[in-house]
Amino acid sequence: MADERPATTRLVAGLPATVPFVAPEAMERQRGRPFQLRLGANESTFGPSPRAVEAMRAAASEMRWYADPENYDLRAALAQHHQVSLEQIVVGSGIDDLLGLAVRAYLEPGATAVTSLGAYPTFNYHVAGYGGVLERVPYRDDANDLTALAEAARRTSARLVYLANPDNPTGSYASATALHAFRESLPDDCLLILDEAYIEFAPAEAAPPVGADDPRLLRMRTFSKAYGMAGARIGYALGTAEMMGAFEKIRLHFGVNLAAQAGALASLADADYLRGMVASVAEGRDEYTALGRELGIPTLPSATNFICFDLGDAARARSLMAALTERDVFVRMPGAPPLDRCVRVTVGMPAERAAFADALRAALAAING
Amino acid sequence: MADERPATTRLVAGLPATVPFVAPEAMERQRGRPFQLRLGANESTFGPSPRAVEAMRAAASEMRWYADPENYDLRAALAQHHQVSLEQIVVGSGIDDLLGLAVRAYLEPGATAVTSLGAYPTFNYHVAGYGGVLERVPYRDDANDLTALAEAARRTSARLVYLANPDNPTGSYASATALHAFRESLPDDCLLILDEAYIEFAPAEAAPPVGADDPRLLRMRTFSKAYGMAGARIGYALGTAEMMGAFEKIRLHFGVNLAAQAGALASLADADYLRGMVASVAEGRDEYTALGRELGIPTLPSATNFICFDLGDAARARSLMAALTERDVFVRMPGAPPLDRCVRVTVGMPAERAAFADALRAALAAING
Repeated sequence: MADERPATTRLVAGLPATVPFVAPEAMERQRGRPFQLRLGANESTFGPSPRAVEAMRAAASEMRWYADPENYDLRAALAQHHQVSLEQIVVGSGIDDLLGLAVRAYLEPGATAVTSLGAYPTFNYHVAGYGGVLERVPYRDDANDLTALAEAARRTSARLVYLANPDNPTGSYASATALHAFRESLPDDCLLILDEAYIEFAPAEAAPPVGADDPRLLRMRTFSKAYGMAGARIGYALGTAEMMGAFEKIRLHFGVNLAAQAGALASLADADYLRGMVASVAEGRDEYTALGRELGIPTLPSATNFICFDLGDAARARSLMAALTERDVFVRMPGAPPLDRCVRVTVGMPAERAAFADALRAALAAING
Repeated sequence: MADERPATTRLVAGLPATVPFVAPEAMERQRGRPFQLRLGANESTFGPSPRAVEAMRAAASEMRWYADPENYDLRAALAQHHQVSLEQIVVGSGIDDLLGLAVRAYLEPGATAVTSLGAYPTFNYHVAGYGGVLERVPYRDDANDLTALAEAARRTSARLVYLANPDNPTGSYASATALHAFRESLPDDCLLILDEAYIEFAPAEAAPPVGADDPRLLRMRTFSKAYGMAGARIGYALGTAEMMGAFEKIRLHFGVNLAAQAGALASLADADYLRGMVASVAEGRDEYTALGRELGIPTLPSATNFICFDLGDAARARSLMAALTERDVFVRMPGAPPLDRCVRVTVGMPAERAAFADALRAALAAING
């Protein structure tokens, strides 16, 4: 027994060493050169509300104190914002954190979770990490195939279905009416996780009314996208008090940064700033669409702060990625067919949009030879 | 089947709804009155290095960007600081986060973890949360009973042993030599988690040399205590590259706040500030010891930034807690015998120490009638 040593669990031993995303910082270290345009992670390059920045600056001087583990003030503001009770909200370190809690709480090891093939990889990471089985359903017409997702959920007796609405990476959305029908078509004991990370950019009809207290619907929202606080790591789950009670039993109670809580609270109060930024993003989507038309690369309709440029096939999309990277532009390419024919680009501020248009023209010219 | 609805896993369904700590903010909401002295959570009331505050203030303006999920710059600085390789360090949202990862990675459901009865409750929370079995060993002579802990680990074929050194809540420490012998007395396949949250306050002989690359030793450190950044949520694990590889497979890659990374990096570079603060805390421990002697309540020796005042029995300790709370002083009382005869008080800045001395005199006079 001389060789005996501590060993990881069988589950962890069997996990791959891959990570959900290779970050732009890692690419920069590999390249030995920084990016000049960072449009690959759908951050809001507009930044947070100036009030949120000020709140976070002020909080830097209070960092000696643990933050309130109940996130009470923020949850109270969110409860009022959504007209739900405090017990229907749990705050976490971004949707990534909350997805982990949802999988851990609701997916028995060996049970199945359904998602679209090529959808948000961090959900898949958690399903694998907690010993679940993943069932992937191809996108159809560049949108989540709700009929096929429901069929897969019924066929596999799935306990979880993950759906981003609006969707990443397509940018498409389903209406609240379609979502309601979708939920009704799932097994009764199957929980629908609705990832609404980009909801603030979408038309009102994309969001089901909050507060319906449906025991089969778990919603997730974030301050990382429209609120411009990706680096702060803060988001929240909306569901029944019973669901939130399950999260309370397993969540990291002291996991959320103090300044993040203060910044989120200030962000939420600045509706004017949000509105202005969303309007600028809508203009930017139109600019990208016109740009794509001009250059002969169609764009997918988007209800988010990013646009997919359709290069027609994966090889050409990869070539464009390489040509953009060479021009110090960080963007991303969806990993799975049929979307791997696209390059996904964040809609930034006007100056960034202009710089991207120049880079895209040059990169396309280069790959067209 | 009309009543069927999504259900939590059997494991989560069986967990208690208790939380590791009721926070001072929750007590304030219950009391309807704020605390004037916050000396119950062993925060460093001195705050972080001014350089760290400045770094976090500057980072507030960069919050639109996701932080580097590899925490590369901080890990590189820590690797140099400890003279280990980058692959021996994983950064997390405080030791609480890292303890969760360690339990998840190394404790098979149903396997046993050993800890002292009354030691850090968040470790216990994670053991329960991942389906492990907890074996608790009473403190002896107000310190971890290393002999009994090792005996319990062998008897239960434990896969994990948790030890805080210096210890919380006693303040005691074991020497590196004693820790080495302790590790040797554990089963070969048992991992020792050494929680060194308070190590910066302790004599040099309390810390085993870093870098020995022992596959049975996992160390955890934090910026929450001596570095004064409790609200930032950042700490790190030190172990073999193999252990850190296991963490990489399950950790939340985008879990750590951007400003926390910047603040930790700046903190680490300001050794002078740390030294000065540690010296002031040492003076404060002496003041508390003298105060206890003056008031007839002995203190336990401490290698940390807190002191346990020994009230002799639990009823008297509870009375003092109540009298201090009434005087708007937040302190804590260890939850389990024999330490529940004590009240644990953070060593704050000189003005706070003086205010606490006044409050303690008044509270003691009140309970002595």
